[in-house]
Order: sequence, then structure tokens, then C-alpha cells
Amino acid sequence: MKRTAFFISDGTGLTAEALGNSLLAQFEKIDFERVTMPYIDDLDKANDLVTRINHAEQTDGAKPLVFDTIVNNDIREAIGKANGFMVDIFGTFLHPLETELSVSSSYTVGRSHAISNESNYERRIKAVNFALDNDDGARIRHYSEADLILVGASRSGKTPTCLYLALQYGVKAANYPITEEDLQDQQLPEALKPHKEKIFGLTIEPERLATIRNERRPNSRYASIKQCMLEVEEIELMYRRERIPYMNTTAYSVEEISTRIMVSTGLKRNR
Amino acid sequence: MKRTAFFISDGTGLTAEALGNSLLAQFEKIDFERVTMPYIDDLDKANDLVTRINHAEQTDGAKPLVFDTIVNNDIREAIGKANGFMVDIFGTFLHPLETELSVSSSYTVGRSHAISNESNYERRIKAVNFALDNDDGARIRHYSEADLILVGASRSGKTPTCLYLALQYGVKAANYPITEEDLQDQQLPEALKPHKEKIFGLTIEPERLATIRNERRPNSRYASIKQCMLEVEEIELMYRRERIPYMNTTAYSVEEISTRIMVSTGLKRNR
Repeated sequence: MKRTAFFISDGTGLTAEALGNSLLAQFEKIDFERVTMPYIDDLDKANDLVTRINHAEQTDGAKPLVFDTIVNNDIREAIGKANGFMVDIFGTFLHPLETELSVSSSYTVGRSHAISNESNYERRIKAVNFALDNDDGARIRHYSEADLILVGASRSGKTPTCLYLALQYGVKAANYPITEEDLQDQQLPEALKPHKEKIFGLTIEPERLATIRNERRPNSRYASIKQCMLEVEEIELMYRRERIPYMNTTAYSVEEISTRIMVSTGLKRNR
Repeated sequence: MKRTAFFISDGTGLTAEALGNSLLAQFEKIDFERVTMPYIDDLDKANDLVTRINHAEQTDGAKPLVFDTIVNNDIREAIGKANGFMVDIFGTFLHPLETELSVSSSYTVGRSHAISNESNYERRIKAVNFALDNDDGARIRHYSEADLILVGASRSGKTPTCLYLALQYGVKAANYPITEEDLQDQQLPEALKPHKEKIFGLTIEPERLATIRNERRPNSRYASIKQCMLEVEEIELMYRRERIPYMNTTAYSVEEISTRIMVSTGLKRNR
């Protein structure tokens, strides 16, 4: 059984997508075809979309689900005429919020992903540049500027996590790969010692690590299961000995790893 | 006037935050204190949260706004007892969706940012690695693998946009900085010629570019307004002559730039 789901917005559509996907994830037996339509910001585009929704209804033989975060009342009403099952996010919640807050909504389009707060936005972009400049132990002299230093074996997920933390939360995260040499004296690497309170460790199942490493360097010693097991074991031992907070990333997405790090470290969100 | 807004979830809280912030952005006169509480996944945590919401109500002298995407009915009910103004996202929409789809929701927690589709998730992480490996014209020999090649002056926003496109949409985006040397023969740089159909150009106001460059290399020729004006003018001329689609990034966030590129190029979302 196939159903079409539309995510519609007069802005980027990111909120409609996020909410729509969250709700659809609860119905895993249904095969949804997802269509995102951002920047529906005039009646012509709205009317074209109505035609498209009605066409999907004909093809599927069932009403498409329509998740919208459109702010403008006229455009929302135009889309409401389609043969869709409307999940009207702003229509449902804005009016009760206006009543509760005793103010009118400004009905301004596309605010949530715009640069509404210049300095917060700049902080996010600076955090991205910081993550890139301080990737892979490249420049340890900037560690004093870091909000967080992620450590872990090569390919345990440090870099994507640092980038996500920067883009989503404006957190300046450096990362330092723990190598075999670092593990020889069973201590925290010298470069990290002055910044111990900022360190968070990642670990990963050795089997998963070997799979990931094999994609980079197939059949190398680096990617062998034996080597991966050894590194992971030593690294986890070091985390415990040094009392470094850490998590196993194997089953988690970057979004989940990042959120858990934010919770665990109590870092403030800069956005 | 200050109001506290809670974003509550049994998962990452990203959806509750996105939706809550979208709605709050419509009330710009009110000073909201935002608190995100992810992983509220048992009744103890829910009851602690009720205490915290009630405390905020006392301090603010007004009901906190509570945006939640909690799936579990018991936990949601527990939170519903707080003195908050509840914006119960799943409670509002799940039941009507169940009726429309004639199936019960699976009421499974934290699905939307989990690795629900392994290959899509891997594609996103591979796209991040691709963006990193092919940043700043580093490895033009991989351009045939790219979904998109972003071009533009140094510091016009290419790298953060590539990373966002990778993380959000699983799009493999390389980027190539157009330098003065490239501009001398008034043509598309040699390395880009075989991939013209994948190219998208960024441009930026020269004043803004000079500000950004000054943070990297203060008082350099590179950061001078004269140099920035010259580069931007030449680059825009080249875009028009070569009929390369492009956009001005000055007023836009990476989220907006990325979404507009997706719309303009018609690239498919890999997630």
C-alpha cells in the first residue's frame, strides 16, 4: 500500500519535513512516497501544488497526507482545498498560542531557518570552521578555545559528530584521534592532558569499525578485526582509567550521538 | 516580558525544537527562554520535569509553553499534569492519522533521528566524508562522483553549504574556489569544464566578503574591499557568460542556501 506524503512550506520546509517524518515513522508498515515542496510563497505555486496533490490522490487511490507549516492564511487556505489529508501545523497551534500569549502572531514567512539572530548564526559558522581547522588532531594549540574535544579511534565517528555539533548547536568541537602510539604508555596523550575537563570519548564495536575502515583501506592491517579489537579495548580501558565520559556510537546516528553528548556534558546550545 | 519554552522529547528533541522554534519565531516581541529536554523516557524523568515546569511557572508568573513530541502515552500524560501550556504535537496529530490510515501507530520512541534506514544513513556519512575530501578544490579527480560542485570566491560559503547538503540530504557536494588566476582567461577553470552540468555558483556582497576575509587574514590584500569587489564582479560575469546557475548567499543561512540549491538543481534527497 502506497501513500504520498507532502511536506509543504513557504520557507525551507525543514520543519515540515522533520515533523512529518517523525509522525510517519510511527506507521512503518505503510510505504510513503515523500515529496518536499519548499518556498510555496504565492497563490500560483499553491494552485499548482493543489493540482499535484489531487493528481497523487488519483494515482494512489487514497488521500495524500499533507504536512504544512505555511504561515500565510491565503496560501494555506488555497492548499486546504486539495483532496489531501491536511496536517496543518501552524493553523492548529498558532491561534491557541496567540490566545495564550495575548499577542498576535506576526505571520512572517520563513523565519525559523533564516538568520534571525546574526551573532548566533555567525557562531555556528565559526564553529564549523573551528571543527574543520581542528580536525584529526591537526592543531592542538587551539584546544584552549574548544568547547569540547572528541577523542576516539580513527573512524569512530568523531568528525561528522563535530560538524553536526557545530552546525546544529554552534558548539566548537575539536577532535583528536587516539593512535597506537598514544596507547603505549597507557595514559592520556600529552596534548590532551591540559584539557581533560573538555574531553569526551567515543567508542564503537570492533566489527563495525573494521567494516568502516575496510572501505577506506581495504585489507590493511589498520582495517583488520584484530587491530580494531586491540585499539578499542585499549581505548576503553584508558577512558575508564582516566575517568573520561564516553559513549558507544555503533547504533546511533550523528544526531543522536550529538544530542547525547550535549546532555552528558551539559554544554550550552549557541543558537 | 519573559516566558519559558520547553522542548521535550523521548528522543533527541530535534523535532520538538524545530517545530517549537518555528512557532515561537512568530512572536518576536516576547523574550523566550528556551529549554530542551531530550530523552525523557521514563516516569521519573517526566515527574522531575513537571517540577521544573511548575517552578518556571512560579518564577515567570506565567505558564511555560511546553512543546512535546513524546510518543509514550503514560509519559505524555504525566507531563500533561504540569502547569504548562501544552503543545502536544504527537497527541494532536497521531490519532487523526491513525484513523485516516486505518492502522495503529507503533508508538515507538525516538524513531525519527535514529538510523531507521541504514543505507540512507551511510549515504549521509559518506557524503560528509566526500565533502571533506573534496573541499577547496583539493581533489578534482573525484568530481565525476560528485552530485554537485559548488564554485565561488574564497569564503563565499561553499564549505558549510557542502557539509549541510551532505548531513541533511546525503548529497555528495565537492567545492572549487575560483581564484584570481582562474579569472584571467575569463573562462570556466579547466578542471570544471568536463562537469559543467553539475556546477552551481555562489556569490556574495563584496562588503560582507571583506568582513569575513578580514577575520581570517586581517588587513591583507585578500581581505581588502577592492580585491573583494574585483573578484565578485569577475566571478558573476563568468557565471552569466557560462550560464551557470548561481545565488547570492549574503542574506541567507546555510539551511536556506542548501534548500534553494536543492530546488534549483532538482537534486534528489538521499534520506
